[in-house]
Amino acid sequence: MTKEQLYYLKKKFSNIALIDNSSLEKYGKDETEDLLFPPHIVLRPSTTEEISAILKYCNENKIPVTPSGARTGLSGGALPIKGGVALSMEKMNKIIKIDENNSQVITEPGVITQNLQDAVREKGLFYPPDPASKGSCFIGGNIAENSGGPKAVKYGVTADYVLNLEVVLPNGDIIWTGANVLKNATGYNLTQLIVGSEGTLGVVTKIVLRLIPHPTTNMLMLVPFYDAKKACEAVAAIMKTGITPSGMEFMERDAIQWTLNNIPNIQMEINEKHEAHLLIEVDGFDESKLLEECEKIAEVLEQFETGEILFADSQAQKDRLWEVRRKVGEAVKSHSIYKEEDTVVPRYELPQLLSGVKKIGAKYGFKSVCYGHAGDGNLHVNIIKGDLTEEQWNEELPLAIREIFELTVDLGGTISGEHGIGWVQKPYMDIPFTPISLRLMKEIKQIFDPNNIMNPDKILN
Amino acid sequence: MTKEQLYYLKKKFSNIALIDNSSLEKYGKDETEDLLFPPHIVLRPSTTEEISAILKYCNENKIPVTPSGARTGLSGGALPIKGGVALSMEKMNKIIKIDENNSQVITEPGVITQNLQDAVREKGLFYPPDPASKGSCFIGGNIAENSGGPKAVKYGVTADYVLNLEVVLPNGDIIWTGANVLKNATGYNLTQLIVGSEGTLGVVTKIVLRLIPHPTTNMLMLVPFYDAKKACEAVAAIMKTGITPSGMEFMERDAIQWTLNNIPNIQMEINEKHEAHLLIEVDGFDESKLLEECEKIAEVLEQFETGEILFADSQAQKDRLWEVRRKVGEAVKSHSIYKEEDTVVPRYELPQLLSGVKKIGAKYGFKSVCYGHAGDGNLHVNIIKGDLTEEQWNEELPLAIREIFELTVDLGGTISGEHGIGWVQKPYMDIPFTPISLRLMKEIKQIFDPNNIMNPDKILN
Repeated sequence: MTKEQLYYLKKKFSNIALIDNSSLEKYGKDETEDLLFPPHIVLRPSTTEEISAILKYCNENKIPVTPSGARTGLSGGALPIKGGVALSMEKMNKIIKIDENNSQVITEPGVITQNLQDAVREKGLFYPPDPASKGSCFIGGNIAENSGGPKAVKYGVTADYVLNLEVVLPNGDIIWTGANVLKNATGYNLTQLIVGSEGTLGVVTKIVLRLIPHPTTNMLMLVPFYDAKKACEAVAAIMKTGITPSGMEFMERDAIQWTLNNIPNIQMEINEKHEAHLLIEVDGFDESKLLEECEKIAEVLEQFETGEILFADSQAQKDRLWEVRRKVGEAVKSHSIYKEEDTVVPRYELPQLLSGVKKIGAKYGFKSVCYGHAGDGNLHVNIIKGDLTEEQWNEELPLAIREIFELTVDLGGTISGEHGIGWVQKPYMDIPFTPISLRLMKEIKQIFDPNNIMNPDKILN
Repeated sequence: MTKEQLYYLKKKFSNIALIDNSSLEKYGKDETEDLLFPPHIVLRPSTTEEISAILKYCNENKIPVTPSGARTGLSGGALPIKGGVALSMEKMNKIIKIDENNSQVITEPGVITQNLQDAVREKGLFYPPDPASKGSCFIGGNIAENSGGPKAVKYGVTADYVLNLEVVLPNGDIIWTGANVLKNATGYNLTQLIVGSEGTLGVVTKIVLRLIPHPTTNMLMLVPFYDAKKACEAVAAIMKTGITPSGMEFMERDAIQWTLNNIPNIQMEINEKHEAHLLIEVDGFDESKLLEECEKIAEVLEQFETGEILFADSQAQKDRLWEVRRKVGEAVKSHSIYKEEDTVVPRYELPQLLSGVKKIGAKYGFKSVCYGHAGDGNLHVNIIKGDLTEEQWNEELPLAIREIFELTVDLGGTISGEHGIGWVQKPYMDIPFTPISLRLMKEIKQIFDPNNIMNPDKILN
């Protein structure tokens, strides 16, 4: 961006612009490792029309624009790699309408996911997808990355709830992608093309989500295993009973131990012999039905050599257990420099994935801490820098990651379940896709964004 | 297609070619009105490689190729409008693998949907989408049109079950669109771009579907209403209780009466005063729970002035009631020349849609018979030719249909819920989409199919 262009943007959008250094630094980071790519200017529009005007100018002048949500992403999707404009959605933070009659909500993208969930819950309605960052992430970011979270095993991911989107295209044109309906066989599915496109095709400015009745009750149990592989095997065995838990989270010992060390107030101890835990939640509308389900699950677990199962007996205890799970990522981060890989496989292949990851670790000399959404085969592999040299970390680790991803794809899976490709996973896109598929994606990008201004250098090379 | 090209195809693919007149006529029709567009040749490949070779030749020689399933479609999607090759998928009819461990099935596209459902049911698994034609339609056609059916209200549509597709592109290249996983944040969603694209982007040759546990029990009730609008209002009221029926079908009196006239063996009578019926099914794993749900539904219905509710008391009676519902389309067809519109709106807007359709009918002088999947706002509007002159039918009716679709879109809906756009709804695509969105779709088409050989003249002009 030239000085003149920066001056123009600053002047034209003076009431919504930030250019002080600390703002540029703030908007130059997300939660991905310690990466920093400051923009030239931050703009914080509050209307679709403002966004349209900004994009039109930037498109005509080929200025990079990176949509910026709450910057909680883990693949660097919100980093302004090429500088230019960080387009913060924080002022687009209104829930426009909760439509109880049709079980839908229309919202702006800058609403915090938890706030959206709370608002619809007051009407008895449920928006299930809840990434670990739900207390701070924006619903717009969830759309961009097709976020998942623990409830996906029963309720699906963000994509499964998106009915219709208002999108500003890079040239400033405004479209709606679909209609506010549950069934739609009308032309190509532009809605699902935008979901998960990580801000590379346009800026989402309004979102229509379907909602479902909110379950009225749930039960939670923590199951310790002497063998981590057995924990993974237990997941597929539980699903085969016909019960679909609303959460089935896997945590290796270190994941849980480091988290406990990191949250001083939590009264909880784990046994050193327990290599892994499953946190299993069932939910529904009928307590006695859930009790039956828990009994059936406990029965299945008997085959897998578990320690004593802990049933949460109060809301406080449930909150505590979920807090531990949600804070694993943070704890690993505070413990060491690390890289997080968001592997996903068909759930029955999880034990193979886990042991493969450990073998690759042994070969390259790194330690990994694994945890994640075992119910849908989504394992977060945290590779710990520990004693690795800079050379090993920078030169050899990419080869190890490549091996992990190749294994994932061999098992029928892919390289990101819910974090997206963004900036950091881009070098690995040749593993899940052939050059033919990648070419199709690049050409789709070009249709939407011929000047390559929208979040450039993300997903595709 | 030139004589030389026809000769080449006939010779090269002699063992899978049909060119006799009765075959050309057979493959020149589907279930859409009485339209007939015979191809020059029918090819019936049984492998992906054969399809790749056919497409490669046709692409190089710009010969139109229309994928052909069971030809049960209602928007003319399988009609070879420009002649060329009808590419029948009937020999691609193997279920490749039922993966019980991961609750998935891998299938070829030429499997009859009902057969697929039956095969997975034997393993306790459930593939819910079941269009009225499920006994004859192909799963590949369901992917092409994003089929719905009565169970969509609870279980969603075809798109909601598709994880991954093998697709032959027009130039003969073969890709997989995604991975066999429940969560995927890896690049643009090519899978959902293919679903519902009606064979205009490539040929689907393998399909990976997710499955769910099969419910073990269900209950069915038929509810008569003195006022059709009240029946529509009841639908939203039932959904607001938090109960999600597994079917909630609306039928106007004529729809049900004509069907009874058309199925001589069915012992059932309806009261002339009942303007409409709702057929309501609940399903699950616990009979006593379903009984509670039925009672709650009956309670809600008390506000809507119904006649006596019929609870099906045997499997035979359930089958009979569903048969009546499934055969409405056929019955209307055998009664009169007609046109079927596949309107869909947010379900609470259904009463407005119904009364709007009747008003438009009064204005243009046509009678309509309406029925459909009220639970998800999907109303099939059958416009009866009756006494209309040819001129009225051909010149005025398109204006009336335009008014119906404009109303649909004004109510937040769109012009096809589950039948697709195909050939017959193409003139109305300017109603749900602006020129900008249509241009994006055309450019997507061009990326996949630069020579415009795949099912040309469908969806887009």
